[in-house]
Amino acid sequence: MHAAMEQFSSKYLNRAVSELSKLPGIGKKTALRLALHLMRREKQEVDDLGNALIDMRGQIRFCKRCHNISDGDLCEVCRSPKRNNGHICVVEDINDVIAIEKTGEFFGLYHVLGGVISPMDGVGPADLKIESLVERIKKEEVEEVILALPTTVEGDTTNFFLFKKLAEFGIRITTIARGVGIGDELEYIDEITLGRSIVNRLPYQDNLKR
Amino acid sequence: MHAAMEQFSSKYLNRAVSELSKLPGIGKKTALRLALHLMRREKQEVDDLGNALIDMRGQIRFCKRCHNISDGDLCEVCRSPKRNNGHICVVEDINDVIAIEKTGEFFGLYHVLGGVISPMDGVGPADLKIESLVERIKKEEVEEVILALPTTVEGDTTNFFLFKKLAEFGIRITTIARGVGIGDELEYIDEITLGRSIVNRLPYQDNLKR
Repeated sequence: MHAAMEQFSSKYLNRAVSELSKLPGIGKKTALRLALHLMRREKQEVDDLGNALIDMRGQIRFCKRCHNISDGDLCEVCRSPKRNNGHICVVEDINDVIAIEKTGEFFGLYHVLGGVISPMDGVGPADLKIESLVERIKKEEVEEVILALPTTVEGDTTNFFLFKKLAEFGIRITTIARGVGIGDELEYIDEITLGRSIVNRLPYQDNLKR
Repeated sequence: MHAAMEQFSSKYLNRAVSELSKLPGIGKKTALRLALHLMRREKQEVDDLGNALIDMRGQIRFCKRCHNISDGDLCEVCRSPKRNNGHICVVEDINDVIAIEKTGEFFGLYHVLGGVISPMDGVGPADLKIESLVERIKKEEVEEVILALPTTVEGDTTNFFLFKKLAEFGIRITTIARGVGIGDELEYIDEITLGRSIVNRLPYQDNLKR
């Protein structure tokens, strides 16, 4: 390892390449290309990049209510007076919040679980923010919980666990629609998705609402 | 611009994504993926990455003799007692030094021009480390200058300029061989490369030397 890292004539370059290549999807070659690029930029630009990363990791906080990323106690979504507090969308991770916010179709609040139940990876219900979701349902006036977890075995397991756990509160529990993606050709859809989208077919008028 | 950057609920995330997406080949989506990845890593790891980049840009120096990257006055190649000081390989940039060093086939010294002559981009001979190359040839006991510049119009222009400039010193001036790459299928080679490799054909024995 050490010998392989000593291939450049500067320990600073070695270190930068080694750190950059730890990033997902960035191999040794790309890391070198990025390092050489940064070496040619102004010192200020490189300082800005380095400090932006350090500050993000050091300063970022999580919303006390929904565990979304936040600069304060509550995240922007939870602070907004425009959101419907009766709807909680349960997601696996913060990037799901970003993805759903981008659609501009959801006006309720979120709850970020921080993962899904996965016995294979040693993730049980206690490792997720499930208790705080239950607390929210007890305290807040929640009408509907929308489960927007990944359509994997782990996601389905978590959906089922939450469905059981939340049953006693008598609130509406929904999951996001699964089916054929907009713009998809039917022949390329896997059979389970296509099958489900036939079983869960909607009155034509319902699709027209959008 | 400001509005577009405010899409995440943390200014720290916004800044990190914005800085990361300035890197070549890294778009907004990849930048977000990297930022979210870093947010989940240990603080120490992210500090290490950020500081590695800042230190590299701040601390790295260039060899006084050949302008290769270096941690000291002279780079590792120039300091090595094992190198043949009579051979100078002229390259465009430091990544070329890295590429040639990787081959393990060159045992001389380098001279990093820092670019090639390109009137289109406003790069003239005075912008390159050509004077310091001439100084080296005057002072050091150079037998051969190997021109290893890119096989582009700009590279060829620079080759020609250097050939004229160095003619008076009566040293051997060579260029790296151009031809069909090892493992290439002839039918896919462009005709100029293929044509040149026929014109510059070698006695079969010469190829056996390797």
